[in-house]
Amino acid sequence: MIDYDSFLSRAGRKMQQSEIRKMGTVLAEARDVVSFAPGYPDPALFPWADLRAITADLLSGDRGDALQYGPTRGDRALREVITGILAKRGVEASPDDLLVTTGSQQGLDLVARILLDPDDVVLVELPSYTGAITAFRNVQAELVGVRQEADGIDLDDLDAVTARLRAAGRRVRALYVVPNFQNPTGLLIGRDKRVRLLEWAARHDALILEDDPYCELYFEDGAGPGDIRPIKADDRDGRVIYLSSFSKTLAPGFRVAWLTAPAPLAARVEVAKQAADLCTGALDQHIVYEACRRGVLERQAPRLRRHYQHKRDVMERALKETLGDVVSWPAPRGGFFLWVALPAQVDADAMLKRALAHGVIYVAGSAFFVDGRGKNVLRLSFSAPSPERIVDGVSRLAGAVREEIAAAQAVG
Amino acid sequence: MIDYDSFLSRAGRKMQQSEIRKMGTVLAEARDVVSFAPGYPDPALFPWADLRAITADLLSGDRGDALQYGPTRGDRALREVITGILAKRGVEASPDDLLVTTGSQQGLDLVARILLDPDDVVLVELPSYTGAITAFRNVQAELVGVRQEADGIDLDDLDAVTARLRAAGRRVRALYVVPNFQNPTGLLIGRDKRVRLLEWAARHDALILEDDPYCELYFEDGAGPGDIRPIKADDRDGRVIYLSSFSKTLAPGFRVAWLTAPAPLAARVEVAKQAADLCTGALDQHIVYEACRRGVLERQAPRLRRHYQHKRDVMERALKETLGDVVSWPAPRGGFFLWVALPAQVDADAMLKRALAHGVIYVAGSAFFVDGRGKNVLRLSFSAPSPERIVDGVSRLAGAVREEIAAAQAVG
Repeated sequence: MIDYDSFLSRAGRKMQQSEIRKMGTVLAEARDVVSFAPGYPDPALFPWADLRAITADLLSGDRGDALQYGPTRGDRALREVITGILAKRGVEASPDDLLVTTGSQQGLDLVARILLDPDDVVLVELPSYTGAITAFRNVQAELVGVRQEADGIDLDDLDAVTARLRAAGRRVRALYVVPNFQNPTGLLIGRDKRVRLLEWAARHDALILEDDPYCELYFEDGAGPGDIRPIKADDRDGRVIYLSSFSKTLAPGFRVAWLTAPAPLAARVEVAKQAADLCTGALDQHIVYEACRRGVLERQAPRLRRHYQHKRDVMERALKETLGDVVSWPAPRGGFFLWVALPAQVDADAMLKRALAHGVIYVAGSAFFVDGRGKNVLRLSFSAPSPERIVDGVSRLAGAVREEIAAAQAVG
Repeated sequence: MIDYDSFLSRAGRKMQQSEIRKMGTVLAEARDVVSFAPGYPDPALFPWADLRAITADLLSGDRGDALQYGPTRGDRALREVITGILAKRGVEASPDDLLVTTGSQQGLDLVARILLDPDDVVLVELPSYTGAITAFRNVQAELVGVRQEADGIDLDDLDAVTARLRAAGRRVRALYVVPNFQNPTGLLIGRDKRVRLLEWAARHDALILEDDPYCELYFEDGAGPGDIRPIKADDRDGRVIYLSSFSKTLAPGFRVAWLTAPAPLAARVEVAKQAADLCTGALDQHIVYEACRRGVLERQAPRLRRHYQHKRDVMERALKETLGDVVSWPAPRGGFFLWVALPAQVDADAMLKRALAHGVIYVAGSAFFVDGRGKNVLRLSFSAPSPERIVDGVSRLAGAVREEIAAAQAVG
């Protein structure tokens, strides 16, 4: 019998399964489960007819490059279109400092690999996106958490954490933030805070990794274009690596995202990507390019905003009706998620089994914390299920929560 | 001014640009250059009409999962189809031990990350595929070369190298081989040798990383199904990680490949893939699945064999006519490549500039050697250019070689 563990690298031994992906597996195996777990966009909103027309054109046979290997940095025409998208967000970028990545997850992974050695310190919010946490952990970085407040990351705590680390002789390499409708909390970082984050980075010679997949998905009753200006837009020094994606606006099945970074770092990311997957899929890139060129993406944005805002409303209403006396959440002004605080006696991890028995799943909050907290909180995605399924799922969840409270009382 | 180098990880500082990818960039920037550099398949052979029909069906709007996030291991139906492909090659695999990867390059990268710590020893052939070399180098593994002979890797040298390393207290973790129509030499590892490689692995408690993108592309005048049986087919112990791809048989623009590995290792690769890109593109996977299910892939194989065999013939004939007195190569019995030995006074790296001036590019042999050799050899891909362009390109190459010989004589 071969001892396969003896073949694993230190990284290979330490890598941990994603809680969100695990939920995906649970879902695939279960029947009639309402899934509030993964942050999937709603396929009903994918612009099917446009994509069908675009793809028929691309596969005519005249365009060999539509199915060929392509440049590692990504298709040139697509990169030019992306600089236009960035310009609308206030970000000046050259196609040369821009890379198309195979989803933003790849961007996070590549950035982690070129920047972080084992034990290097990266700051993340408490809570933060699990995919980023995993990418940083896979290169054995040390993750240190910074608290949040209602308008996002707590700058006082950021200073305190940085000072504490410096006093211990540790250099902070980077801060990772999702400024717009954060995954998992839905929070928006305040406008002034964004500028102050840049000042913090300059003061401590650190980088900011700005992950921005949700910026187009603001809800017009609570946020506008002025609220979502990327940190990168005011980055005069070149301290921000900015990542964004077409996964939430067109479709995630294309695996087309991008990052823009100061030129010397973009060049390193390119070299890392060569060995990671040579290039992002040509057909996917061509479809996305055409969807931008033909105005499909632009037509999508307002539709998406209205649609997801409505689903948020449906979920908030259902939660208020069924669990309003025992749970609370910060009202999301955009994005896909509700971040629900449970009564202190209810452990979200422990409740998951009961929830599944009721036919509903979510992601327990602990997955998003690097400091072991998050026991009494959970993330609900309202993006994929239909309004009817949202109401049904929340009612199932309410059943599980009520039972859990009763069980805790019986024990207590 | 920010010192970006101070932000780089050790790996980030060491990563090197791929010579092949660099040639791709040269090509993209130049006009009227015949490219024998990258091993691109011929777009004229992509089954455009079938792919158009498949994609129109998939994008009807009824199939939300065609554009959604999917399982990290890959679409279940596709994995089942792949087990059928493997069975025809003599390899028994369960869909559970099989992962769809975003091209085989990702498979190599993930395997390197879960298996190799800095300074761990991996053996590679002299020469070997640059993409694998880069993936292993990016995790800072130590690469040690093993010589080749006419029927592939030299087993005596393999034993000698292993013994030398063991005597120095080094454990060989794995051997990387491309058994069928190797990139860059086109060589085929002999049938008996394959079994003896398994014995070697058992004797030294090592793994074999078997990379097999070209097996379907045997040329019927020189090889048959009996010659391409994977090493994995006889792997009773579970020592082989086997990688293969649809890039050379359907199209590389899909970025769909796979690997099969002993279950404990497959599980680790899955976890690594979660953080690398979450999942391979859904549309790509669905298209590939349908191409298999509808028999497109099966109809492709004989067409590809005839087509590439013809191109090999054209290139060999042109080389014989124009340079037969000064260069030689092992006759390829399949695949995409001719591995051309130049006269001793001609340095393939140095000649590249002259070749580009003549309007032709190739990959200099040194890129494929981990021991600094390969100065007087180059790789020509006959796969993508048309027969006319092959003849034209070889004539340009001959011009460059003749000039280089004359220049060397003038100096000498």
